[in-house]
Amino acid sequence: MEAQVVYNKESLLDMDQNFRRELINTISGYKSANLISTENKAKIKNLAIFNSVVHIGANPPLLGFIMRPLTVPRHTYQNIKETGCFTINHVHKGIIKEAHQTSAKYFETDSEFEKCGFTPYYYKNFKAPFVKESRISLGLVFREELQIKSNDTLLIIGEIVHIFIDKASYISDKGTVNLQEAETVSISGLDKYYEPNFLANLDRARP
Amino acid sequence: MEAQVVYNKESLLDMDQNFRRELINTISGYKSANLISTENKAKIKNLAIFNSVVHIGANPPLLGFIMRPLTVPRHTYQNIKETGCFTINHVHKGIIKEAHQTSAKYFETDSEFEKCGFTPYYYKNFKAPFVKESRISLGLVFREELQIKSNDTLLIIGEIVHIFIDKASYISDKGTVNLQEAETVSISGLDKYYEPNFLANLDRARP
Repeated sequence: MEAQVVYNKESLLDMDQNFRRELINTISGYKSANLISTENKAKIKNLAIFNSVVHIGANPPLLGFIMRPLTVPRHTYQNIKETGCFTINHVHKGIIKEAHQTSAKYFETDSEFEKCGFTPYYYKNFKAPFVKESRISLGLVFREELQIKSNDTLLIIGEIVHIFIDKASYISDKGTVNLQEAETVSISGLDKYYEPNFLANLDRARP
Repeated sequence: MEAQVVYNKESLLDMDQNFRRELINTISGYKSANLISTENKAKIKNLAIFNSVVHIGANPPLLGFIMRPLTVPRHTYQNIKETGCFTINHVHKGIIKEAHQTSAKYFETDSEFEKCGFTPYYYKNFKAPFVKESRISLGLVFREELQIKSNDTLLIIGEIVHIFIDKASYISDKGTVNLQEAETVSISGLDKYYEPNFLANLDRARP
């Protein structure tokens, strides 16, 4: 029988920093893979991959994501505060390399759109670009930010006001978005990409 | 060419409530699948499936999850406030039916452990049971709660103080937890379960 691995508070605090980062980033389970796009008032665009998008509620339709501490300039955050909006764009199987590349540290004046091979598009007067290469894109207006005191990260919450789904076949008549057909991927840790395969659709549980 | 599907604020607010719930729950992308276990001071245990566990930070090791509004009794919340701790237990392929069943509305005095076929186990004096059938389990102490004003949900944050990984082969010498080997699943919406297959491990991105 293989040995069980056990960590406790002491070993977690004592362990090598890189080991702990990888351990804690992977042990939280599979995460969503999304490109968040914004621009500032001068229309300089920003595009960055996030694995922390979380469902907050359906009515009103709210999503949130975790923003790391503002100890260095965070363009996504600054742009959201300037324009009041952002877009969340699904990463599909065909664009994982380009999406991952947005995590590189580019110069302030460079746009990840151009550098990583993505095409921005605009909808009416919405002040954040959508990602043309994404198959499912959402436009959100900023609603609130909450400061997490334990480590100075922020939970940023937006309300969905626009949804673009590339093909009608990606959505069922019950409202289910078929992520597998749209080839949306999931992430483990910061750099491991997965393609989920359907196992089961379970009925509403009753005692 | 297939038609694109477009929703805007008006159509999102006007649509059938069940359709919107399903749409917004699935359009946020793949989510983690975890059983959160707690007990109250009288040692009545609670076990519930959550798809909103999110990584908050690695140092200190913090995870969070979204708690729905406290308009009805929420045992998970009440127990965390009474004991100051909870456990997060990965759902793997072999226990998805039992894990999903914890979402049924049982009587106050019933324990989902017994009703759904799970076995609690305790570690030292930690005041929340772990799930024996889970292959990766975490013990957390409550750190803070943040109220999301937009819809009265809560972000509950805990610090990881115990980690149990069933087999040494589930973790690499770099700290990577191999979710695929542990057969951890991911969720779309509230009821669709997926088994992710590895696509790529991408190098740290550089300009």
